[in-house]
Amino acid sequence: MAYRYDPEIFHDRLTRDADYVTRAMDTLLPMDGGPESRLMEAMRYAALLGGKRVRPYLTLNTAALFNVDAKCALRVAAALEMVHCYSLAHDDLPAMDDDDLRRGQPTCHVKFDEATAILAGDALLTRAFEVLAEEGTHQDATVRAELVKFLAKASGPFGMVGGQMLDIVASQHELDMSEVARLQRMKTGGLIDFACVSGAILGKATDHARQKLHGYAHDLGLAFQIVDDLLDATGDVATVGKRTGKDENQGKATFVSLMGIDGAREQAERLGAQAIEHLDVFEEKADPLRDMAHFVVSRVS
Amino acid sequence: MAYRYDPEIFHDRLTRDADYVTRAMDTLLPMDGGPESRLMEAMRYAALLGGKRVRPYLTLNTAALFNVDAKCALRVAAALEMVHCYSLAHDDLPAMDDDDLRRGQPTCHVKFDEATAILAGDALLTRAFEVLAEEGTHQDATVRAELVKFLAKASGPFGMVGGQMLDIVASQHELDMSEVARLQRMKTGGLIDFACVSGAILGKATDHARQKLHGYAHDLGLAFQIVDDLLDATGDVATVGKRTGKDENQGKATFVSLMGIDGAREQAERLGAQAIEHLDVFEEKADPLRDMAHFVVSRVS
Repeated sequence: MAYRYDPEIFHDRLTRDADYVTRAMDTLLPMDGGPESRLMEAMRYAALLGGKRVRPYLTLNTAALFNVDAKCALRVAAALEMVHCYSLAHDDLPAMDDDDLRRGQPTCHVKFDEATAILAGDALLTRAFEVLAEEGTHQDATVRAELVKFLAKASGPFGMVGGQMLDIVASQHELDMSEVARLQRMKTGGLIDFACVSGAILGKATDHARQKLHGYAHDLGLAFQIVDDLLDATGDVATVGKRTGKDENQGKATFVSLMGIDGAREQAERLGAQAIEHLDVFEEKADPLRDMAHFVVSRVS
Repeated sequence: MAYRYDPEIFHDRLTRDADYVTRAMDTLLPMDGGPESRLMEAMRYAALLGGKRVRPYLTLNTAALFNVDAKCALRVAAALEMVHCYSLAHDDLPAMDDDDLRRGQPTCHVKFDEATAILAGDALLTRAFEVLAEEGTHQDATVRAELVKFLAKASGPFGMVGGQMLDIVASQHELDMSEVARLQRMKTGGLIDFACVSGAILGKATDHARQKLHGYAHDLGLAFQIVDDLLDATGDVATVGKRTGKDENQGKATFVSLMGIDGAREQAERLGAQAIEHLDVFEEKADPLRDMAHFVVSRVS
């Protein structure tokens, strides 16, 4: 049967997978009775509050391509989401983006305080690496060490954190298209790449399969960011769940400021289609990943 | 020949090992030419500025007990020091301890800015785990995964970061002796334990040897903190290299406020002697560790 995107089926699967990963994080982030329990509360607040859980969905559904044990994939998805959530808690701080709203709720430092939000972010990042290194993640320590290395690379100075620095520097300079694209690759592309390829590492997939997933991740990640810029430019806070119009207010170069709204939308659609082409080799098993590409291009929040 | 503490020989060895680890970090924290290079500058500033490098010394000299390849031990020592330095950069932030002086120099957020100091800390922590997981650290991936797990546990919510939270909460409550001791175990004890036992993990030492090193680390770490409290209470900024008198100004319970200056000094000496007793099994190979126990008790900065 030919593939067809059914938003309803996709949203059911996305919600189901989000529940799985939230429950996994709930187990992996236990409370503690001591006076320092405020830290665990803040970690749990930052991690469990919600969100679409796009990255975990990618990990779970690429792992399924290679028949990886779902319990292992879920631990990797949870670790990845902890890193994503730590980065949001730190990015929202007054010294950084100074955001008070995230997913329609007060940000971590507003709900708690700055010191607690900094520490909760630190602790989520640390816990993520611990989870990857624990035996439950994979029986083969080579796989566990590779996952640690890969996630660290994707989220470190040459990945996500470097991208965040570039984003701050960028607000004082006029970036051109290649610089905006480089910013995206570092700031958000690395984690999406990890999300898509970690399933292949868990499943000890061939280099060919990994390359296909790298390609999918690249196009999907770029499309995701372009749509994010579109939502910031055209969405309203009630729908998007965070402040909008920030980029334009800050005079920041984005895909939208560089390509215009129509150009950006066309480019996102082109990339979505291109992302799907990388998946041919996996046949119908990759339908959940095809769905994600459709969703990324058509999402309104 | 009977063991005798020679401060001169010890200081030469401490300086030599500090140079080794600083050079290792210099290699492991490369600069980058992009506009985000400010991040790497700040990472390098926070990590390379100096410090006694007590933790790396412990790793290098416990690894030597088990004839571990010095290149491997140096990578672990460097990763550990990156975690220590990240924690200082974050602890010094205005939202936390608000310190402007560290090792006699402006703290990271004073030299750069708050956002950069937060990101530099995040990136140092991330890079530390990457270094541990890389093949160069040990040929056996089981060892690498165990090191990641151990360092994460020592520095995460139930270790260093939890201890920092407890420290913040503690400034609003009167702690008793057992709570102050628990704070120390979490905030500084975990990393010292990792420093002493990681060499045994690298060398695949027996459980018995590990237990001895855990014991040494426990007593040494406690002695170190008591002397830190003594220096804060009695030292001056020029000698100590950071603001002193903070604990008393903040009305914070410390080992000194609970035991008095003489009681604290006696307790530190007792712990130093006790730390050394754990080392008998290693005979004269452990002399550098005996030296460290003497130094910790007698240090003035």
